[in-house]
Formats: sequence, C-alpha cells, structure tokens
Amino acid sequence: MPRYALRIEYDGKPFAGWQRQKEHPSVQGAIEAALAKLEPGAHTIAAAGRTDAGVHALGQVAHCDLAKDWTPFRLSEALNYHLKPAPVAIVGCALVTDDFHARFSAVERQYLFRLISRRAPLVHDRGNAWRVSHDLDAEAMQAGADRLIGKHDFTTFRSTMCQADSPVKTLDELRVERLPYPGGVEFRFHVRARSFLHNQVRSFVGTLERVGAGSWTAEDVSRALDAKDRAACGPVCPPEGLYLASVTYPSDPFE
Amino acid sequence: MPRYALRIEYDGKPFAGWQRQKEHPSVQGAIEAALAKLEPGAHTIAAAGRTDAGVHALGQVAHCDLAKDWTPFRLSEALNYHLKPAPVAIVGCALVTDDFHARFSAVERQYLFRLISRRAPLVHDRGNAWRVSHDLDAEAMQAGADRLIGKHDFTTFRSTMCQADSPVKTLDELRVERLPYPGGVEFRFHVRARSFLHNQVRSFVGTLERVGAGSWTAEDVSRALDAKDRAACGPVCPPEGLYLASVTYPSDPFE
Repeated sequence: MPRYALRIEYDGKPFAGWQRQKEHPSVQGAIEAALAKLEPGAHTIAAAGRTDAGVHALGQVAHCDLAKDWTPFRLSEALNYHLKPAPVAIVGCALVTDDFHARFSAVERQYLFRLISRRAPLVHDRGNAWRVSHDLDAEAMQAGADRLIGKHDFTTFRSTMCQADSPVKTLDELRVERLPYPGGVEFRFHVRARSFLHNQVRSFVGTLERVGAGSWTAEDVSRALDAKDRAACGPVCPPEGLYLASVTYPSDPFE
Repeated sequence: MPRYALRIEYDGKPFAGWQRQKEHPSVQGAIEAALAKLEPGAHTIAAAGRTDAGVHALGQVAHCDLAKDWTPFRLSEALNYHLKPAPVAIVGCALVTDDFHARFSAVERQYLFRLISRRAPLVHDRGNAWRVSHDLDAEAMQAGADRLIGKHDFTTFRSTMCQADSPVKTLDELRVERLPYPGGVEFRFHVRARSFLHNQVRSFVGTLERVGAGSWTAEDVSRALDAKDRAACGPVCPPEGLYLASVTYPSDPFE
C-alpha cells in the first residue's frame, strides 16, 4: 500500500480538535471521511500534533495508506473536493516510504500564537487571535520568554491531562514579534521544539501575557518554572490564537 | 445636537450590505440598533460608501447626531458593547462640527481588493479574498490597470443599476501588488479615487483578472473603456475580496 504525507491547513473554529470523536466534528474525522470517498472502507490517519478545539493549523502533517497508486497532485485535488465545505485544505501531498510516520518521524514542531492588544473587538481576525484590551510590553514578554528557553522540567506549563511520559523537554525558540495592527498592536509568539507537552504553548503565552501586562516579572516566570508545579502557572490562554505552523522531518517529504 | 464621526471595521459575510433593509441584516441597521440602545428612538446614520453584500470595511466612515454629550472614547466603547456579537467594530470616534458629512465631505476613497491564486481552497481567508486556481501575471494586470488611470467615461465599468449622475470619474490609483501566500500568490489591488461608480472596483478587478490569466490584453482593456458600453466589460468579480480601506477628508476628524 502506498503511503502519502499530507500537509494540512485548517481553521479550528468549527472543530472539537484534531482527534476523531464520535459525537463532535474533528479535523481527523473530516479527512478520513474524504479518504473514504476515494477508497471505501475505514481509514485511520496519524498526525504530527493533536491540536485542541479551536486551535488552527497552517502546516499540520499527517500520513495515510491507500490501496491505489495516486499521483500526489490528483490525491490532493480529490481530497480538497470531498472536504468541501469544511475549512480544511490539503496544501501539500507527497508519496513517502513505509517508514515515514507523521508523528514519530518528526524532529521539530513550530507553533505560532497571535495575541492582539486593542480596545475594539476583533472583526476580521475574530476567532483567529486572542485579543486583550490593555497594553502589553513586548520587551518584558521576551525577557520572560528567555527564562523558558532550553531543557527543563516543564511540569508547571503542562496540562494535568498531559499523557507524555516525561515533563522534561527542550524549548529551542520562544520569540516575541511586535507588529502594527489596525487600532492596536499584534504580538506573535514563535515557538519551536522537538515536541511539546499538552497545553504547553497556551500555558507559556498565558503566563507571558501577565508579564507583558506588568503583573508578573521575568523572575516570577523563573520561579514558576522552578516550582515544577502546575498550580504555579499563569492563566492558560484561550485556543483561538494558536496555530500549528509547521513540522520538520529529517528530509522534507514535500520538497 | 453633537455630531460624531465613526470609523468602522466590518466583516461583510453576514450582511446584505451597508444599507439598512427591512428583511435582511445590514451594517447600517446594526449600528443604528446599537445607537438606539444608548439613546432611545430612531437613528439614521450616513456613510462615506454604501458597500454591497459580502463587501468588507477596514475604515468605513459614518456620522451620527446624538442628544447627549458623549466623550468619543465612551461612545465607541458603548457602541462596541451593544454591537456584539455582530462582526462590526467602531475603531475610531470623534466629535465633529455640524457641517461634517461622512459622504459629502469626503474627498477620496481607497479600496483594497484581495485576489489569491492557488490550487487549494482558502481556509483562513475564506470569504475574505477571491480565489482563482490558475496562475496570474502581475505585470500584465498592472499594464491593463494603467489604461484605466485618469479621467474617463467609465460606463463600461459601471453597474446598470448605478445611480450616479455622471459616468465620468477620475481614477487616481490602480496598483497591483504581488505578495507571497501559502501555497500560492496574493495580488492586492489598491484603488483610489474621489468617488466611485457602483460595482466599479469589482468590474476593474474582474476584467484585470482576465488580463492576468492571458485571455485579455492591455489593449483589450483600452478598447473596453473606449466602448463606453457595459456589455464590453469583463466578468464582474465576486464581492468577498473587496474592502473599503479608508476615506479621506479635508482635515482628518480622527487625528
């Protein structure tokens, strides 16, 4: 059976998350249903990252096994046809070898978080960014972020529901970018690691937002990290600003 | 009665257009209903440009007369509160003199049109841009656009429903910007004039898209313009890529 890697864009708003669920719409369920239109029967696809309800993707990666030989172009076109009207699109498709696994072969994941500070409610980016109405200090947030870079026990920044074997992870990048936004300012958090704990990015951003607002210091971030205690975390921020931006493999299947 | 100028952002998707209608939701109707929450009674507001169904705004301007003296900040906050959950936001508010009229005082209007060329359906920009699946030549579109700059009889590029007294208008800018877009290319049309005819921008973009695709030449655009005949226009493009970007007044009320 030929194996295909899929690069997937989706809007998380209408979904209960990536993972297939009996009662609720999911991104995995939508793609598996589209695959069943191409080749009848049950399909199970595996993804690089299981995103939560309301979380978006610019470059999620999954793989599927099919019976027929499809050219990657035809497969992506056929899937996009059957995915309509769900806000999910196959933006890359490649034939890969049997040992490629979207989750286990991945060597790095990049997330983007969009945080917008402005008084007026969001209009064009509603559901696509987290808005706060107060000012935020980008330099203070970066100073707080710098305390989290490197290899640490991230128990503080991990959901109590997290199923990872170990809370020890290496955070390679947590960079705060400040951009103009109509009527306000946008802060983009660029986050990069081999792998992440459940709710780790939202725990980081929720905590750093407190630093940006002036109610936490960078030193408080270090203390929270050192506590290795979920209760020491700042408020976990809402999902709507979070995007799984891209996934890296030892050799890029979509090249 | 104090008069206020409002700068307004809206997402055109759920609306039948700017103008109040009995049976359908409109942006004007949403704002007038919010005003009635602040000061009971009927309110009628006037806008710089009456946008069609599905057309968005980044900087529409309207004015309203109120009985009470409001600080502009409190007025915009109160309106935004009552506008929820409609995707409409007051992003600027200013006290103006009685001779300010959002429509008649305006000396220039700027529109933006977003056209995206990519194979995959749009996800994050669905309803916010017009997608075509073929390649487009930005230089060819600019060459076609250059034929439209200046003072002309724009009968060809005007809806037969247009109520303007004269089809003669001066087009000050029609600039095609080419930007990278995930999995494709985005073309932004920046259009600027003192005033516009009904469907003028969508008639321009629909015609220039044909030039970009190679089925029309710049010379064909000149011939269509010279024909002064609505039937000579290219296909009018859909509304979802169009934004009323900003409106200029002799002195900026929001400064």
